[in-house]
Amino acid sequence: MRITGTFLDEISHDIPHQNWGAKEWDADFAHMKKLGIDTVIMIRCGYQQFLTYPSAYLIDNHGCFNPPIDLVQLFLDLSEKYGMTFYFGIYDSGKYWVSGDMRDEIDSNLFVVEEVFQKYGQHRNFGGWYLSLELSRKTRNAVRSIAKLGNHCKAVSGGLPVLISPWVAGKKAVLANSDQITKSTFISIQEHEREWNEILDGIKNSVDIVAFQDGHVDYNELEAYLAVNKNLADTYEMESWTNSESFDRDMPIKFMPIKFEKMLLKLEAARKVGCTKAITFEFSHFMSPQSAYIQAHNLYDRYMEYFKIR
Amino acid sequence: MRITGTFLDEISHDIPHQNWGAKEWDADFAHMKKLGIDTVIMIRCGYQQFLTYPSAYLIDNHGCFNPPIDLVQLFLDLSEKYGMTFYFGIYDSGKYWVSGDMRDEIDSNLFVVEEVFQKYGQHRNFGGWYLSLELSRKTRNAVRSIAKLGNHCKAVSGGLPVLISPWVAGKKAVLANSDQITKSTFISIQEHEREWNEILDGIKNSVDIVAFQDGHVDYNELEAYLAVNKNLADTYEMESWTNSESFDRDMPIKFMPIKFEKMLLKLEAARKVGCTKAITFEFSHFMSPQSAYIQAHNLYDRYMEYFKIR
Amino acid sequence: MRITGTFLDEISHDIPHQNWGAKEWDADFAHMKKLGIDTVIMIRCGYQQFLTYPSAYLIDNHGCFNPPIDLVQLFLDLSEKYGMTFYFGIYDSGKYWVSGDMRDEIDSNLFVVEEVFQKYGQHRNFGGWYLSLELSRKTRNAVRSIAKLGNHCKAVSGGLPVLISPWVAGKKAVLANSDQITKSTFISIQEHEREWNEILDGIKNSVDIVAFQDGHVDYNELEAYLAVNKNLADTYEMESWTNSESFDRDMPIKFMPIKFEKMLLKLEAARKVGCTKAITFEFSHFMSPQSAYIQAHNLYDRYMEYFKIR
Repeated sequence: MRITGTFLDEISHDIPHQNWGAKEWDADFAHMKKLGIDTVIMIRCGYQQFLTYPSAYLIDNHGCFNPPIDLVQLFLDLSEKYGMTFYFGIYDSGKYWVSGDMRDEIDSNLFVVEEVFQKYGQHRNFGGWYLSLELSRKTRNAVRSIAKLGNHCKAVSGGLPVLISPWVAGKKAVLANSDQITKSTFISIQEHEREWNEILDGIKNSVDIVAFQDGHVDYNELEAYLAVNKNLADTYEMESWTNSESFDRDMPIKFMPIKFEKMLLKLEAARKVGCTKAITFEFSHFMSPQSAYIQAHNLYDRYMEYFKIR
Repeated sequence: MRITGTFLDEISHDIPHQNWGAKEWDADFAHMKKLGIDTVIMIRCGYQQFLTYPSAYLIDNHGCFNPPIDLVQLFLDLSEKYGMTFYFGIYDSGKYWVSGDMRDEIDSNLFVVEEVFQKYGQHRNFGGWYLSLELSRKTRNAVRSIAKLGNHCKAVSGGLPVLISPWVAGKKAVLANSDQITKSTFISIQEHEREWNEILDGIKNSVDIVAFQDGHVDYNELEAYLAVNKNLADTYEMESWTNSESFDRDMPIKFMPIKFEKMLLKLEAARKVGCTKAITFEFSHFMSPQSAYIQAHNLYDRYMEYFKIR
Repeated sequence: MRITGTFLDEISHDIPHQNWGAKEWDADFAHMKKLGIDTVIMIRCGYQQFLTYPSAYLIDNHGCFNPPIDLVQLFLDLSEKYGMTFYFGIYDSGKYWVSGDMRDEIDSNLFVVEEVFQKYGQHRNFGGWYLSLELSRKTRNAVRSIAKLGNHCKAVSGGLPVLISPWVAGKKAVLANSDQITKSTFISIQEHEREWNEILDGIKNSVDIVAFQDGHVDYNELEAYLAVNKNLADTYEMESWTNSESFDRDMPIKFMPIKFEKMLLKLEAARKVGCTKAITFEFSHFMSPQSAYIQAHNLYDRYMEYFKIR
């Protein structure tokens, strides 16, 4: 199973910026294309006060900074140049990470979705929405909020597909600024199934694609979790992708490119359970031959060799 | 507002060494020059047992190691070659970080300042002193110690300027080996003003230039803090520089080069309040085209593009 | 004193993978050779479920993954090509790190040692065994387990030498995923001597070479510890090597290449006490001119300059 999609990690949450300009992004899309990527997903259009595009709404109403470059326009143009589908990730104010209530993110995003579709929606490569708010049972009003946002995205855009990429509350689900790499209390697969059955039931008509992150459980447990996820998604008629993380959660430096062998094991698990597409978080830091992490250059080489891509 | 000065982070406290020799330092001064740097500030002449120059005093009396290279001589010669003013950073034994009493650093530095000025003071590019001991209300005897050291530096050198670069006890003021990036209790701007009014009053005739570190408060609060700092410095007739940090305090890896947009926001805030010079901590790791961090190469490119420097 | 041996850090425990293939490893052995390395020690043949060679035993009985490349064969072939002696590091299931009882590692390794020697033992560069299980007083049954494994290695291989590389429980002995770089309670040199006298007495006929890790105590204490270690090893007729760590334990990023000055100080201390060989953990990440850490390229250059190697 090959990777055919990647997140674009701008604005970054916890991965150091590479300080690329338009020229470097163009080169990176060319590298992505060569590896077989046809889908790019902007992780979020803004985080706290930093924005990827000059949003009049967020600058005026939320005190955001006017960005030095319009990355949404750039990514759309590069998507056109390289024949890719672009997914737009919604705004994350940072508030719900503190309050634990996803309603804090709704109102602003209802505006953002409209503003963005008006500004960029006519672009032929604008292909879908990514709900960047990370969903779990512990976030209050999460199901209702995701449903509302998904419905709004579809209504505004004439039904463009809506993607989410949740995490499993597994043993490796620690925060990036924790000094640990695992935690002692984590969810069982039965609890995971029960909770996600409820969650997916609540958002079934509002979300089209579910791409679970694949890095929070052990390599030998992954297939079982992916199978549960695939069955649940089938039940609620959603498409199942896998978000195959290309960084290594087992190392004390958070985060460096993953060992190729681990990536292969994870992709193979996704193939076995029938995921229809593999995307990754994310190509530009962790798999690109021009990444600031040289380990990524080697991961790219191993990947290209293994799949005999020239 | 452009950066025209940089610290030289030898001996490093918490940034991994790049293992440069004379050739690499020469190349780096050439890069600095091209970017517009005219002032270099050696962060400290020694830390614990490691030294930048073969100090007979510190080797004999404090058990320091004889260094493999005389970096003070090298930096002075390169300052001459590239037309820069060199500031000498005093010794940090590491003791006051543990004891919380700055008097532990006085006696050794009274000797060091004399030894150094005798050894290197005739060099035409020896242009000032940097009091590397980081000053805050919580360090006992800090005000008295800094005043005493500043006076001594001036007396020994015929009045060469004395620079300090304090930190604001803001929400991002966490130790490098903490797993956190923010802390929950931090100073208000009113407390900051009151405390620094007292501190600057106590050192007003002993210090010439104050360059507050600009990375410990949020981007939208920075201008207000810088304005307070500028007013206080004006009151006590000190010059106000800004120490615009070129590393990113918002990321779990401590530390990587900053996102260019953040640097621009900080420089703009310093321009608005009337700082007369911007220095950075520091060029060689975080902005240099030959840094071991490739993100720094891109930061350099973005900076040069933005300010149209060729 | 020069470095003439290095660990090969596959399978890595806490250092991010470089994702090298056969070509990159070949180039790295050439770099090692040029620097003067004649001995390579594979740190472990497997860790948890990841393996360096396709072990039928570990795959069938311990649920390990079949590796994409046989690194043992590759390392042996490169050892032959470049004239090096290869030491094989035994399996670490990860269990004893949790249970604190080294007996958990014995049974599997009795099998592994036989399987490996049958598979690769005829190779002319297969030159010894490395007992990768890290030994300390706090691990239950450690002495008995190490003795049993050492005896077995020798019996199976016609007496090939057995190497261990223990750590001193000094102030820098913190875990890689700790946010600290030192700890407050640590062993005195007297306790260290007493404990290791007991331990070495218990394994004296089962282990041939002891190479203590040199990074857990302060630079000014190191010679005293090395002297104790050398005397103890002499008493029990073992050879004393030093394992001169090429990464920096004093920095918050765990881990980056060491400052060259520190490496020199440590090698000089080992020379003074009469260690017969210096090995390092490890060349490929921290000293190689093709490392993903550019600081390593500079460390290599400084080393080659200092020892006038061309």
